[in-house]
Amino acid sequence: MKTLILVRHGESEWNKLNLFTGWTDVDLTENGIREAYEAGKLMKKEGFHPEICFTSYLKRAVKTLNQILDAMDMDWLPVQKSWRLNEKSYGAIQGLNKADTAAKYGDEQVLLWRRSFDVRPPALDDNDPRNPRNEQRYAGVNPADLPATEALCDTIARLMPYYKETIIPALRQHEQVIVVAHGNSLRGIVKELKSMGNEEIIKFNIPTAVPYIFEFNDDLKLQKDYFLGDPEEIRKKIEGVANQAKKK
Amino acid sequence: MKTLILVRHGESEWNKLNLFTGWTDVDLTENGIREAYEAGKLMKKEGFHPEICFTSYLKRAVKTLNQILDAMDMDWLPVQKSWRLNEKSYGAIQGLNKADTAAKYGDEQVLLWRRSFDVRPPALDDNDPRNPRNEQRYAGVNPADLPATEALCDTIARLMPYYKETIIPALRQHEQVIVVAHGNSLRGIVKELKSMGNEEIIKFNIPTAVPYIFEFNDDLKLQKDYFLGDPEEIRKKIEGVANQAKKK
Repeated sequence: MKTLILVRHGESEWNKLNLFTGWTDVDLTENGIREAYEAGKLMKKEGFHPEICFTSYLKRAVKTLNQILDAMDMDWLPVQKSWRLNEKSYGAIQGLNKADTAAKYGDEQVLLWRRSFDVRPPALDDNDPRNPRNEQRYAGVNPADLPATEALCDTIARLMPYYKETIIPALRQHEQVIVVAHGNSLRGIVKELKSMGNEEIIKFNIPTAVPYIFEFNDDLKLQKDYFLGDPEEIRKKIEGVANQAKKK
Repeated sequence: MKTLILVRHGESEWNKLNLFTGWTDVDLTENGIREAYEAGKLMKKEGFHPEICFTSYLKRAVKTLNQILDAMDMDWLPVQKSWRLNEKSYGAIQGLNKADTAAKYGDEQVLLWRRSFDVRPPALDDNDPRNPRNEQRYAGVNPADLPATEALCDTIARLMPYYKETIIPALRQHEQVIVVAHGNSLRGIVKELKSMGNEEIIKFNIPTAVPYIFEFNDDLKLQKDYFLGDPEEIRKKIEGVANQAKKK
C-alpha cells in the first residue's frame, strides 16, 4: 500500500486579519503552530511514517511541516521546497482587506476572484515589490514561470509539472509521502486524484492542519481517502474555512 | 568572495543534565532555541544571505537551523540533512551520566574518551536499540558506514566525504553556504579549513549558536575567519563549553 498525506498549513496571521494573502509570506499564529503540532502528534499515534516531505516556499507551510515533523520525532526527514506548491497568487489585491476590496470592486467581482476557476484578480506591476520577479527568493526560477496574478486554473497549471515529475515519482519510490501546502495548491492535487470537475473543486474546502490521507495500491490506483481526526472537529474546521469566504 | 558559515547547535537538554549525548536525539532547551534565534537575527542584521543549508540528522541541529532561518525570514531556503554531520558517537556510554561514568571507569579514562583524537569509548552491541543500525532513520545508509562508537578521528573520517563532495561543491556554486552541526563534526571542518594538528583541534572549543564565519576568495583560498557577535559574550560561551568537560 502507498499513502499520500496532504496537509493544509495552520491558521496564519492574515487569516485572522481578513486580508488577501496569496504569495505574501505571513507567519502562523500561535493557534496555527499548535494545530500543526497536534496534527503531527495524531499522525504519530496512528503509526504514520512518511519517508519524504514536500512543501512550498512560504513560511506558513514550511513551519507547519516543521511542527509536524517535530511532533512525530522525525525532524531528520528529507524536505523539498518548491515555489510550485505556493498558494494561488492574488495579484494586486494581496495585502488588501477583504471587506475594503469588496466595497471598492463590489461583492460579486471579489467573489469571482476568490471562487471562480478562471477569473484572475488584477495583476501585479512588473516593478511592484510584491511581484515575485523582484524577490531574491525566486531568483532561481525562470521569470516567465512566475505569476503576477492567478486564477485557480493557473495555480493548477504551474503545480502539475511538480506533482507529476516529483511528487508522484517519490510515491512510486516510497511507501508514504507528505505534502504540506495551501488551500488552492492542494485543491489542484485533490482535483487530479479524485477526478473532480472545475465547479466541484471550487466548492471543496480543505480544513487547516488536518491530515488528508490518500491510500493507493502499489500501481498507484486510489483505494480510499479520508480526513484523519475527530469527525465533529473536522466538520467545524471545514465550516470555518467555508464561512471565511463570506466574512466581511 | 565566498562565505561559509558554521554554527554549533544551541544548548540541549542533555548539556544541562550532564549526560553523554552523541547520536542520542535530544531536544534543544528553551535557552537553546532562544540563542539559535538570536544568531539568526544577528546574521540578518549583518546582511548575510546564505543560499543553501546543511545540517545533521539530529533535532538539536535541525531545530537550530530552523530557528536561524525563521529569524532571517528565509524559511524557504533549501536544506540538506546528512547523518555524516552528526555528533561524534559516544558508543555504549551514550545516555550515561558523566560523573557516574568517571566514578566507574576513572577520570583519566573518561577524559581520553572525550578528549583524545583516537581513543574510542566502548562500542554499542549490534542489538542495542541505541545502535544506529537498529534505527529506521538510518535505514537508507550502508550499515557498514554506521558507527557503533567513535573517536574524533572516526568522526572526521566519515564527515570528510560529505564535506568534500557536497559542501565544498555547494560553495563553488553559491556565494554563501551555512552548516549547522555539532561540536565534533564542526571540529572536523575547522581542522581541515585551518590545517590544524590533532592536538590543536582537540583543544579548540566552538561556542554554541555563534556564527563562525569563513571568508574565501573565488578560488576558495581562506582569507579570514571570525566569530560573529560580541567578543565578551563569545569568550564566556567558549569558557562555558571548555568547563563543561571538567564538570562532575
